[in-house]
Amino acid sequence: MRLVTFTDGMGARVGALDSSGAVRDITAVDSSLPRDMLGLIASGRMPAIGDAPVVPEARLLAPIPRTPKNVFCVGKNYHEHAKEFAGSGFDGGAKDVVPPFPVVFSKPHTSIIATGEPILGHLDPTGGLDYEGELGVVIGKGGRGIAKADSLKHVFGYTIINDVTARHLQKRHSQWVLGKGLDSFCPMGPAILTADEVPDPAKLTLTTWVNGEQRQHASVSDLIFDIPTLIEAISAGITLEPGDVIATGTPVGVGIGFSPPRFLASGDVVRIEVPGIGMLENRVA
Amino acid sequence: MRLVTFTDGMGARVGALDSSGAVRDITAVDSSLPRDMLGLIASGRMPAIGDAPVVPEARLLAPIPRTPKNVFCVGKNYHEHAKEFAGSGFDGGAKDVVPPFPVVFSKPHTSIIATGEPILGHLDPTGGLDYEGELGVVIGKGGRGIAKADSLKHVFGYTIINDVTARHLQKRHSQWVLGKGLDSFCPMGPAILTADEVPDPAKLTLTTWVNGEQRQHASVSDLIFDIPTLIEAISAGITLEPGDVIATGTPVGVGIGFSPPRFLASGDVVRIEVPGIGMLENRVA
Repeated sequence: MRLVTFTDGMGARVGALDSSGAVRDITAVDSSLPRDMLGLIASGRMPAIGDAPVVPEARLLAPIPRTPKNVFCVGKNYHEHAKEFAGSGFDGGAKDVVPPFPVVFSKPHTSIIATGEPILGHLDPTGGLDYEGELGVVIGKGGRGIAKADSLKHVFGYTIINDVTARHLQKRHSQWVLGKGLDSFCPMGPAILTADEVPDPAKLTLTTWVNGEQRQHASVSDLIFDIPTLIEAISAGITLEPGDVIATGTPVGVGIGFSPPRFLASGDVVRIEVPGIGMLENRVA
Repeated sequence: MRLVTFTDGMGARVGALDSSGAVRDITAVDSSLPRDMLGLIASGRMPAIGDAPVVPEARLLAPIPRTPKNVFCVGKNYHEHAKEFAGSGFDGGAKDVVPPFPVVFSKPHTSIIATGEPILGHLDPTGGLDYEGELGVVIGKGGRGIAKADSLKHVFGYTIINDVTARHLQKRHSQWVLGKGLDSFCPMGPAILTADEVPDPAKLTLTTWVNGEQRQHASVSDLIFDIPTLIEAISAGITLEPGDVIATGTPVGVGIGFSPPRFLASGDVVRIEVPGIGMLENRVA
């Protein structure tokens, strides 16, 4: 099932996308369902679409508009991207081209926006705006010390993240919150594809276009640190909670991978697709 | 006024410390006051102790047990500490000894503990546990694009943070969330000293002891990036919210400043004092 958070003027609530892509109002036919995604995830319940009515004028919000913690993000987690990043001169952080351990930073909830909402490019006054298409993992059952072998049981589902980055700020500040955590720099959505429909997340693929031109295309199987490894590494010391999100890293093909770099400009449209989840599309304001 | 969050078995709520250090139950005499610190901060109200009763068996919680975002933390923000860190070989991050721009990372709310609660040293299996005494700034009125000149108007008050760090993990992962964001690695408290009592935060001083031995002593005036600069830099692109916390960085004297390093061991007690705010004391479990 593809779960969304939407609003239609009657307040934000959870819904489901049917096979035609229409939003169905699942809480209208089951009032016992939590109306917000965090509540639904924590409840452990799995709704059914059944005869839930179509919402004619639904506007999608980010599936989790406010994550419990900052969104966990993983840097340099595809080999070819790690090389392009090292070669770009923009890595103000670690010294290794391919990291020996996962590189984890965070983006605050204030950076989260929905598909269709604008990326506020003017918040990067340094002219180094870049995109990073990524698969996002949504935690279901929380915990600390989650072993790799158990990790996928803790996944509620999968979404798409654009890890928008101000490259000059990323380099300047060396730790990446200020270069990557700006308002609107975490487009998320359009939906969460529930884990029951994803027996093996490594088989998912991700494609990114800028103004219709394909820039990134990769299989999640190419991750340096796979999803079970990331969940084990993060939860080793940090208690994960229902609704925490892990953005797993971006493949080769970001703007700084080109020479000269192809930064985003006002009006550019970034579209990221993961078949099964949908399309996340945002225009630079 | 020194505001606290406490519990006495009747639920967690805000209180105030009187001049004798006793907890006074300010919501008992003014039921219109928000009972939680985030609500109180957002309300813009400033309570008075008046004849609020003493709570005989109050147990202090962290003043903000759950921050709106991960706690913002600033690395390498005192000159002598930046040098000791560079010399230690543990900096897996930036290349500059003294950073040209603020180095900002974050700790999730799950790392926050109160004074008196144990630091879970076993969560660092690599044996590199270290302390970092810091002044914490609590945001009152939120906003984005806050200019230096206006920044102190956005400060609700000041608290103490121990930016507990697993040094080997900090280095391994190069970005610092996994080395610094572990459960219990953000002792905070005991109280928030409201900004009206701190006309110039640069005049505050901070002292850290380990098992009674003084390790750190500094004036906040020695910060490389002062509090107005930090608020301006963070809020340039990120909307700050009431109750967001910025840990401003630690002075010279951390465990890795010694040769060989003096890491913390089970049973060690770290005590940090900022006169006016109080003492933050935590034992390593």
